[in-house]
Amino acid sequence: MAEPVLDSVHANGEYVTKMVSDSLPANGGHGKYSYSKNSYYQRSLANTEKNKIDEEISQKLDISKFCSTSNIIRIADLGCAAGPNTFVSVQNLIDAIVEKYHFLCPTSPLPEFQVFFNDQDTNDFNSLFITLPPDRKYFAAGVAGSFHYRLFPESSLHVVHTCYSLHWLSMLPKELNDKNSPAWNKGRIHYTSAPEEVYKAYSTQFAKDSENFLNARAKELVPGGIMVILMSGISKGFPYSEIPTGMMYDLLASSLMDMAREGLIAEDRVDSFNLPFYAASPDEMAELVEQNGYFSIERMELTNPVPSLEGPIDIRAWIMHLRAATEGVFIKHFGREAIDEIFKRLIKKLSNYSELLNSRTNVKVQLFAVLKRK
Amino acid sequence: MAEPVLDSVHANGEYVTKMVSDSLPANGGHGKYSYSKNSYYQRSLANTEKNKIDEEISQKLDISKFCSTSNIIRIADLGCAAGPNTFVSVQNLIDAIVEKYHFLCPTSPLPEFQVFFNDQDTNDFNSLFITLPPDRKYFAAGVAGSFHYRLFPESSLHVVHTCYSLHWLSMLPKELNDKNSPAWNKGRIHYTSAPEEVYKAYSTQFAKDSENFLNARAKELVPGGIMVILMSGISKGFPYSEIPTGMMYDLLASSLMDMAREGLIAEDRVDSFNLPFYAASPDEMAELVEQNGYFSIERMELTNPVPSLEGPIDIRAWIMHLRAATEGVFIKHFGREAIDEIFKRLIKKLSNYSELLNSRTNVKVQLFAVLKRK
Repeated sequence: MAEPVLDSVHANGEYVTKMVSDSLPANGGHGKYSYSKNSYYQRSLANTEKNKIDEEISQKLDISKFCSTSNIIRIADLGCAAGPNTFVSVQNLIDAIVEKYHFLCPTSPLPEFQVFFNDQDTNDFNSLFITLPPDRKYFAAGVAGSFHYRLFPESSLHVVHTCYSLHWLSMLPKELNDKNSPAWNKGRIHYTSAPEEVYKAYSTQFAKDSENFLNARAKELVPGGIMVILMSGISKGFPYSEIPTGMMYDLLASSLMDMAREGLIAEDRVDSFNLPFYAASPDEMAELVEQNGYFSIERMELTNPVPSLEGPIDIRAWIMHLRAATEGVFIKHFGREAIDEIFKRLIKKLSNYSELLNSRTNVKVQLFAVLKRK
Repeated sequence: MAEPVLDSVHANGEYVTKMVSDSLPANGGHGKYSYSKNSYYQRSLANTEKNKIDEEISQKLDISKFCSTSNIIRIADLGCAAGPNTFVSVQNLIDAIVEKYHFLCPTSPLPEFQVFFNDQDTNDFNSLFITLPPDRKYFAAGVAGSFHYRLFPESSLHVVHTCYSLHWLSMLPKELNDKNSPAWNKGRIHYTSAPEEVYKAYSTQFAKDSENFLNARAKELVPGGIMVILMSGISKGFPYSEIPTGMMYDLLASSLMDMAREGLIAEDRVDSFNLPFYAASPDEMAELVEQNGYFSIERMELTNPVPSLEGPIDIRAWIMHLRAATEGVFIKHFGREAIDEIFKRLIKKLSNYSELLNSRTNVKVQLFAVLKRK
């Protein structure tokens, strides 16, 4: 019975994500709540699109041009966390490139690969380095810093990959905490079920972040270089409160407000707590890419992270994953003593809505984009 | 009085060194015995040769050739530890290159710099990353792994720098622990004051390591690329027991044997303990480079780490530095409970020999080499 349960978690993979925002590094190390121990379904997410990524690499990446100037292919995974999923994604990319290379230049020596693993400077790179696959056929390097800024020299990368990272905002819009603003997000922790002004504050920040991200990558990628993006997404205009992640955010806010009413945490701590997470629609993302102007859109679509869902959501496992990715920010905001209670209450509330949650697991919530540097 | 005391430590900088051998990672973090807190005189060591390095860069590095193919200069610091000295060395190199570039191509845009900080995968890269100079004008990356093997793609580096790392052997010669071998190093911890067979075992291992190191760098450096090496050295045939480091090794062995006699540690633990440290002479190093064949020797000399010595050696500070660099290996071998006692006894014994030690601080014990990839 292990597989169906695991699958049901995978199906909701987008809810539990790596944290690349300054305020939200994923848990490092290899402990009970570590990201590395609790992120095995991100691996499945990345794998769901493997065939499509292979296809894009095969059709769009002009390897022979790259290799005419140097025999090195440089790949960056942005928002890699401490592993191990990043190693799988990177290996998939390399396999696709090697396959294409064998086909195009069967008698030439293979290029050498240099892979840059990037995440915030608070990421646990020590864990990443000691768990690098010993049989890897690439030269590995870690790069610490925000991918909203430049991280690499000009025209030095051939492929950029970013999986479940780009939906994290670089910062929370200030107006969410301004009592005099119509975007004051009292009693909520996200734009789910919030007034339009709150949503607008989030989407404006996402647009700024995307512009910075695209400008930085436009400098770093060689002409013809490919960028593969997997992130949370949603259909244009679809209410976030009607998909499981949004429901979970609403119930998390409700759990926190219950605890505030019982005097376990201060209410103004709930008011001032917001998750810097934004799920864009393909239309919105396409518009941002076109405005930026440096990339052609090779693919932009919503997909279902795990189409072959079997069995119901395993709520406990799901929240365990959430905790692995977000515990740090909850501890910082509400104190270590409140943590167990917060997640316990959330699991209980979610369990009451399990039927509704399960009825929404087939909504497409993964944005898959492939861009090519013009 | 602070400066003379500090200088006197600097003057003996070679005794306290970064640990790049598998068995000897330097202490990470920023605690009392951390390498980052206790290595400020490595910085001085690197700085003593700054003028010479500037001169070599100015005369030997063919920047215009590199920049005709790409506008990126890639630099690697091998055995960087957790910082901060590596940042100073790297900045010195970049300053020298920029100066040369301004002179050669005053109207061209400056190249971009990408700097790779390398050390063993047990190094504290997390500390390194969070302490990267915020105003740096280069793209930084960390590379985990032994520099006795390949770390970078072919012809991808322009300058390699390695400061106080290359004297660490990749492994201890097995015969040191073999009771039936003439190289069994009973009652000692190093080849200082040891039979010729022990010395031979060390020098053979150093030759193997150097060959591996040079072969790997020969692949990675572009033709015309420069390698700057600072490490412990000694005049050909000069007994190691007659310089302060060697005296310290002898007294450390003697302290350990005293503790064994008092039952505080087991005698066979002393017999099986050896420091994987080897100081080569310029002649020996030159021979290894020539045998290897891939590099021309631009400079190969013994220098005094701090020629402007004032005041006596500060023994306590010296041993504090030693502890920062080697505590891990002592704990592993003798147990945490023995550590304070080992270093306390060593300081006491050294204090009894302070006059002799101070009479030997002007011996040249720094090997400075600049090699150029043919």
